[in-house]
Amino acid sequence: MEWFNEQLDESIFDLGARISIKVGKKIFEGQSDFQKLEIYETPKFGNLMVLDGAVMLTEANEAAYHEMISHVPLFAHPNPERVLIIGGGDGGAAREVLRHPGVKECVMVEIDGLVVEKSREYFPTIASELDNPRLTLLIADGVKYIEENQSAFDVILVDSTDPVGPAEGLFSKAFYEKCFASLKEDGILAAQAESPYYFRKTQKELFEVLKSVFPYSTLYLSAIPFYPSGTWSFAFASKKYKQNEQVRTEAMEKMRPELRYFNPEVFYGCFALPTFMREVL
Amino acid sequence: MEWFNEQLDESIFDLGARISIKVGKKIFEGQSDFQKLEIYETPKFGNLMVLDGAVMLTEANEAAYHEMISHVPLFAHPNPERVLIIGGGDGGAAREVLRHPGVKECVMVEIDGLVVEKSREYFPTIASELDNPRLTLLIADGVKYIEENQSAFDVILVDSTDPVGPAEGLFSKAFYEKCFASLKEDGILAAQAESPYYFRKTQKELFEVLKSVFPYSTLYLSAIPFYPSGTWSFAFASKKYKQNEQVRTEAMEKMRPELRYFNPEVFYGCFALPTFMREVL
Repeated sequence: MEWFNEQLDESIFDLGARISIKVGKKIFEGQSDFQKLEIYETPKFGNLMVLDGAVMLTEANEAAYHEMISHVPLFAHPNPERVLIIGGGDGGAAREVLRHPGVKECVMVEIDGLVVEKSREYFPTIASELDNPRLTLLIADGVKYIEENQSAFDVILVDSTDPVGPAEGLFSKAFYEKCFASLKEDGILAAQAESPYYFRKTQKELFEVLKSVFPYSTLYLSAIPFYPSGTWSFAFASKKYKQNEQVRTEAMEKMRPELRYFNPEVFYGCFALPTFMREVL
Repeated sequence: MEWFNEQLDESIFDLGARISIKVGKKIFEGQSDFQKLEIYETPKFGNLMVLDGAVMLTEANEAAYHEMISHVPLFAHPNPERVLIIGGGDGGAAREVLRHPGVKECVMVEIDGLVVEKSREYFPTIASELDNPRLTLLIADGVKYIEENQSAFDVILVDSTDPVGPAEGLFSKAFYEKCFASLKEDGILAAQAESPYYFRKTQKELFEVLKSVFPYSTLYLSAIPFYPSGTWSFAFASKKYKQNEQVRTEAMEKMRPELRYFNPEVFYGCFALPTFMREVL
């Protein structure tokens, strides 16, 4: 049994703290055109996925991420029928989106086919809906895709890695302007927005962009043990509705037994930001 | 610059993951009658306190713990005048309690004088109110103290370490029965209750105790980066009022500018528990 120590590029992310996870066998290591993928067995948390040295997910804790990036914007929208996921190659966000019976089509545009292929192989409970007939899975550049698909979506999820490497473009103003154009007139976007403890500068820049593009934006939180600081945030940006204006509480209640993390209380509670975290808005 | 790796006793806490913090000079190391105390400088988080290998606090992140263990029960009580802190040797909980102008006396009973002494020396912003005339500081066994002080307190805070070593007795039914007796008829208790990700068994046992002693109990959360999983929980146990029945929102609003973490939204949001965390209740 060894310790896997998260290895972030210190020239960019000099956090001063790091998470380590006890691991067994390394199941896979490979380099795609975009990033280095490693997969380990762990004694406590199921399989572990690492991209460019950063912990992406474990089987045990993935729900706190995938349920929160998906259900918060979907339940804040009155009737989401067409959903776009940019990134999300492991399939976890798609699995959650497809729990919504009203969703007619979910389009997932992942740039790195290797992540999808290896998730099918080593994370079958996460990639479980990748063959769902309501899912359109494209291995392509998400930024190009949205340029060609205007006013097409009710909800967009930006399920990206950190803002370096393949995801760098997913934190720019040009990208969010394209997302805005690609959303219908009452569309909602959610995007992973890093740690509120460690990525204050990134968050400030992101919200400057979002505020200049969307009429309404805010931040919400999830407790994700293996991401830096253990608390992660998501940006919520909306063309029409605030998060509490069109909430479908009954539908949330109905989905409660299926989920490990999300529930109606969490929907309301996750927007309650500690004072220092509000400063980035 | 070295990494301090948190060292929990794996025969008790085999978590499978750990936090590491980059540290500079070790400022102090000493063994009291109760535990080993270490203090380090860190480049990012101010000074770091470690007890028996476990991270207790850093100057940068202590507010998320001290504000939450204190203000949640104090603002849920209609008029807290007498407050007891069991443990809390660093002084952070006392500092927060004494922000409340209505508190006439705060009694703090810490078993380990070395923690108090070194907190005064190396964590002066945390220990800042230890000489406040409204504070009665006793270096003594908290369990014995409450036996001798019945119906005396409006609020009790159990600011303990993990349930091994000096704090073992602070997780027992006998202890909470004494707390119950030591509270006035509308008294409220808050106690640190470990990580909702890693200490499920401890939490279940704690809530079996609390439910058998108090008419009402629940759990609330805080985002504390350097505790295992990054999310920490507190037990809330009450003889009369639920957390939302006597809330003093105006007083909370008034204190907002002084605080780094707690605010009225957080007060309401912190009781929203992800589904898997609710199972221990």
